[in-house]
Amino acid sequence: MGFASDELTHDAFLGGKLHLWQPRKGYRAATDPVLLAASCPAKPGQTVLELGCGVGTASICLRTRVEARLSGIELQPAYAELARRNAAEAGFEMEVVDADLAQLPADLRNRSFDHVILNPPYYGPGTASPDEGRDTALREHTPLSVWVDTALRRAGPKGCVSVIHLIDRLGDLIEMLNSRAGLIEIKPIVARTGKPAGRVLLRAQKGRAAKTILHNPLVLHDGLQHNQDGDDYSQAATDILRNGCSLKF
Amino acid sequence: MGFASDELTHDAFLGGKLHLWQPRKGYRAATDPVLLAASCPAKPGQTVLELGCGVGTASICLRTRVEARLSGIELQPAYAELARRNAAEAGFEMEVVDADLAQLPADLRNRSFDHVILNPPYYGPGTASPDEGRDTALREHTPLSVWVDTALRRAGPKGCVSVIHLIDRLGDLIEMLNSRAGLIEIKPIVARTGKPAGRVLLRAQKGRAAKTILHNPLVLHDGLQHNQDGDDYSQAATDILRNGCSLKF
Repeated sequence: MGFASDELTHDAFLGGKLHLWQPRKGYRAATDPVLLAASCPAKPGQTVLELGCGVGTASICLRTRVEARLSGIELQPAYAELARRNAAEAGFEMEVVDADLAQLPADLRNRSFDHVILNPPYYGPGTASPDEGRDTALREHTPLSVWVDTALRRAGPKGCVSVIHLIDRLGDLIEMLNSRAGLIEIKPIVARTGKPAGRVLLRAQKGRAAKTILHNPLVLHDGLQHNQDGDDYSQAATDILRNGCSLKF
Repeated sequence: MGFASDELTHDAFLGGKLHLWQPRKGYRAATDPVLLAASCPAKPGQTVLELGCGVGTASICLRTRVEARLSGIELQPAYAELARRNAAEAGFEMEVVDADLAQLPADLRNRSFDHVILNPPYYGPGTASPDEGRDTALREHTPLSVWVDTALRRAGPKGCVSVIHLIDRLGDLIEMLNSRAGLIEIKPIVARTGKPAGRVLLRAQKGRAAKTILHNPLVLHDGLQHNQDGDDYSQAATDILRNGCSLKF
């Protein structure tokens, strides 16, 4: 059921402030959960629910920056187990519920949170990954609309939903959020200055007047082309990914 | 019914390539219809319908760049009359129909167009302008959803809808377009580098796979702050507003 120890790696995040156990072959967090965590404007003591928390990367990165109260739900028990272990080893409390977000347990259905964060699978039905865990994390088995609906329902009356996704889905996300959330803020993420956005952070706040704000893009890399992997993060990206700073919209 | 000649001004557009009659005190075109025209990817011979064409600024600017076949509908007869005059004086044919876009005449309801362009009123119900023509052009008497619905209906099976609006309404526009148009492209317009977008150009193409593309912003002004009106357009803005170039997404 769980992973054997030789199936795991122990990887540095936030410039080594944090180490997380991840399956060697399964879904492995890259920059996206770190950006998501950095963008969540949680204040100390506020509650944060992560949908599909995996090994806990986003929640634990967030907790490293701000003393929020963490809850996560994860469909795959072996990943949920790693999330609990990762949080405990980092010295943080994190409630991790083994659950399908499409069928939340009654207890969770009766609670609301100051923040809901989510990094849903990026890829639609298509060629499956041979690794089941990776496949579940990356492919959209549960429709994006169910993720967003669950996030909106679990956010309190003035709750805030933060999501990161491929830019392809921006239209779908806004369609799902627009009439149910008030303020929608869009933060494009571009590889380099002048390029179209590849990914997007969306922040939707309930109980605010309806309005959209489109912010200046976060540029991940300096220069005009890619030289060597990871060697050319922009200062803004370095501050977030290595120094653990917040991602300001 | 029409404007008296002393109620009109004859203003230069596209660096003087074009002069258009506008009411001195009514709605006066600024950069937005020019940007809209520059962004419409019409090819020679294609049909273009402008909803709420006013004095024809967007359509006639577009025709100056590309030999498209122009149609416009305009609620206010005195503006429609000026659109006909402006097109004729520029040497272009333009069909201008006096009509309410919420109640199109049967002839128009049976036609479809390669492109539909629109620059809807920016302001919701609120303090009315003392000038009725200006008020009709600027305030949202007809809901934005009716503008977008009409545009989508009049665009052919592979038709393209281009709209410019305040960024506040991006969420609403995408909600209206997303499930009915395929490809949605977003071009933010920012006053200066690093600022949030103030306005947005949206291009929706029917009959294409559903996808959103968020492009690099068009930056209107160089430098970090406003010095003197119009004296510091960026090269990209100058190319579009003064030299009549197309606005590439």
